[in-house]
Amino acid sequence: MIRGNDPILLTPGPLTTSLATKQAMLRDWGSWDATFNAITGSLCEDLVRIVHGEGTHVCVPMQGSGTFAVEAAIANVVPREGKVLVPQNGAYCQRILKICKVLGREHVELPVPEDQPATPAAIEAALARDPSITHVAQVHCETGAGVLNPLPEIAALCARLGKGLIVDAMSSFGAIPIDARTMPFDALVAATGKCIEGVPGMGFVLMRKTVLEGCQGNSHSLALDLYDQYSYMQKTTQWRFTPPTHVVAAFRAALDQFLEEGGQPVRGARYRRNYETLVRGMAELGFRPFLSPDVQAPIIVTFHAPADARYDFRTFYEKVRARGYILYPGKLTRVETFRVGCIGAIDDNEMRNVVTAIGEALREMGIDMRPGALVRAA
Amino acid sequence: MIRGNDPILLTPGPLTTSLATKQAMLRDWGSWDATFNAITGSLCEDLVRIVHGEGTHVCVPMQGSGTFAVEAAIANVVPREGKVLVPQNGAYCQRILKICKVLGREHVELPVPEDQPATPAAIEAALARDPSITHVAQVHCETGAGVLNPLPEIAALCARLGKGLIVDAMSSFGAIPIDARTMPFDALVAATGKCIEGVPGMGFVLMRKTVLEGCQGNSHSLALDLYDQYSYMQKTTQWRFTPPTHVVAAFRAALDQFLEEGGQPVRGARYRRNYETLVRGMAELGFRPFLSPDVQAPIIVTFHAPADARYDFRTFYEKVRARGYILYPGKLTRVETFRVGCIGAIDDNEMRNVVTAIGEALREMGIDMRPGALVRAA
Repeated sequence: MIRGNDPILLTPGPLTTSLATKQAMLRDWGSWDATFNAITGSLCEDLVRIVHGEGTHVCVPMQGSGTFAVEAAIANVVPREGKVLVPQNGAYCQRILKICKVLGREHVELPVPEDQPATPAAIEAALARDPSITHVAQVHCETGAGVLNPLPEIAALCARLGKGLIVDAMSSFGAIPIDARTMPFDALVAATGKCIEGVPGMGFVLMRKTVLEGCQGNSHSLALDLYDQYSYMQKTTQWRFTPPTHVVAAFRAALDQFLEEGGQPVRGARYRRNYETLVRGMAELGFRPFLSPDVQAPIIVTFHAPADARYDFRTFYEKVRARGYILYPGKLTRVETFRVGCIGAIDDNEMRNVVTAIGEALREMGIDMRPGALVRAA
Repeated sequence: MIRGNDPILLTPGPLTTSLATKQAMLRDWGSWDATFNAITGSLCEDLVRIVHGEGTHVCVPMQGSGTFAVEAAIANVVPREGKVLVPQNGAYCQRILKICKVLGREHVELPVPEDQPATPAAIEAALARDPSITHVAQVHCETGAGVLNPLPEIAALCARLGKGLIVDAMSSFGAIPIDARTMPFDALVAATGKCIEGVPGMGFVLMRKTVLEGCQGNSHSLALDLYDQYSYMQKTTQWRFTPPTHVVAAFRAALDQFLEEGGQPVRGARYRRNYETLVRGMAELGFRPFLSPDVQAPIIVTFHAPADARYDFRTFYEKVRARGYILYPGKLTRVETFRVGCIGAIDDNEMRNVVTAIGEALREMGIDMRPGALVRAA
């Protein structure tokens, strides 16, 4: 992997990007210029193709972070009198609930333990309990803990019951298979700075064309109006409001590298190798993942923090950072954890190296978690 | 000016940035990392200082284009039962009206001819006609035509009458003097990709602290909630949602160069030289600016298009672009015009060169606008 000498980001985005992706930002682009608008157009086509949505779905890019695009999707797709079911097993599900609340969209939370995936059975039961629910908003990979929710089955269920489906695929898009033909969805949201390995600054919503056509006037916001954004772009090839030109250009470069690498299957396989290398190495140090392997997405792994009084995350973080690796804090309320991302322009060498860095950091902190050692430390 | 070999953008943003600014994007930053969050913090402090708002005002950065920040400012600052007066002399004033409409904020348009500035007298009369108006939303430099609206007088008026003031200073911030001590405002909005010469992807709102404190719960949107954005950042030093890390880093580099250059007075003087060089050169080619010099901001100049059947903007644009300069179409409905920006990491040499390029393009199109020549062409 070609990279500069940045510390490696083992976070669920922003993540480490290739030097080629960053170098694509060494140009300034006019937002009215045809060469720039051709980039936007080609990005949208490629993104639709990744989910096999040609002919049925369109791509609406949206300035801002991924959350801006999630909010836009909820606000545009769910009519003001609609009602949203949110299977909730982590921080990003909670964010969708917060969005519904701010937007004044009726919503029902379906609580799911944060170490378990949402099940089609529980969703079906919730829909049966409240037939006024019109839409399900499902996080695909919930990076709060790292759970992979079963999108194919949930999509099939929504299709069967005639419920709309909005998918937050922020951290899965490009790494985990998504197929609009067999997993029907109304809107699926992702962003530049995740598994396509672009830089952050833009989200996008892949929308069923017939759904988008019904969205006019739904939006609570001018900036976040997907219908308006799409119609204007169709008419003019341009963005309504200034696009993040450098982010767009970097995303084009990242997408080129994604396609060259072999697309989703090959990228997903690289992340899986990263994940397996990480978990194996961490196990040798005595770390246990929070999740059982069968519900774990190969995107980000939550580890139990050492049960040692000498451990605190800040010190641990700084020591690992000094060795060139940036970790991510845990996002669980009841258990002390930290997270290590497996995504970005990194390979299994980096995972071996971060394990070494973590081992050294623990040693410096006087912590030894290996079997038997724990007994000595206690 | 050090630059790559991009075509020069003579547009009101995105604009041409320095190579140093773009090179700042060759690193990846963790959004949880202290070094990155220190950058955000230092940016906010410097931006407040530019308008002399230390102690009274705070800076709330906002992902997305400048329009996202304008919408956020209107939605947060104007309570739901408030009413906004919008002096309207161009496209960006119209956008504010559209935002008010989508947000459901009551609003009154004060029509002003697009070649004239809004006058404090007309604003005072409008406020007298409708005492239920609570806020004035004023575009500082209206780049639709390029008019500079008299902010100091309008701010003084609003202060005297006890009306809130929201300023869209998108294209003036950093180039034209703004002083929160003598031109009181509640909120002033600008963005990275304008006169500070960063890359696009982020806006910011400079808000009176006491106003911000009263904003809780006003926002229609989670993503665009300025109160929430600010409180979270104060508490954690972090952004609520993924920041456009590379855009932020480039903005820091751009701001460093801005301060090094001598800040607003020196930057404003450079743009004025650009403006004067452009207008002088264009006059020699026979071009007349649309605006009278006394209402013209030195930011972007609208020129009357050649009154010649052989002229069309697309061809003209392509020919000038082939010579390395990207112009901007006109934004007026009744008069055929085009626009040339004077802002960005460019100096008067570029303005001389673009005049040469424009002259050559006209010659190729068989158009001669010089006095006497028009008669021959007719």
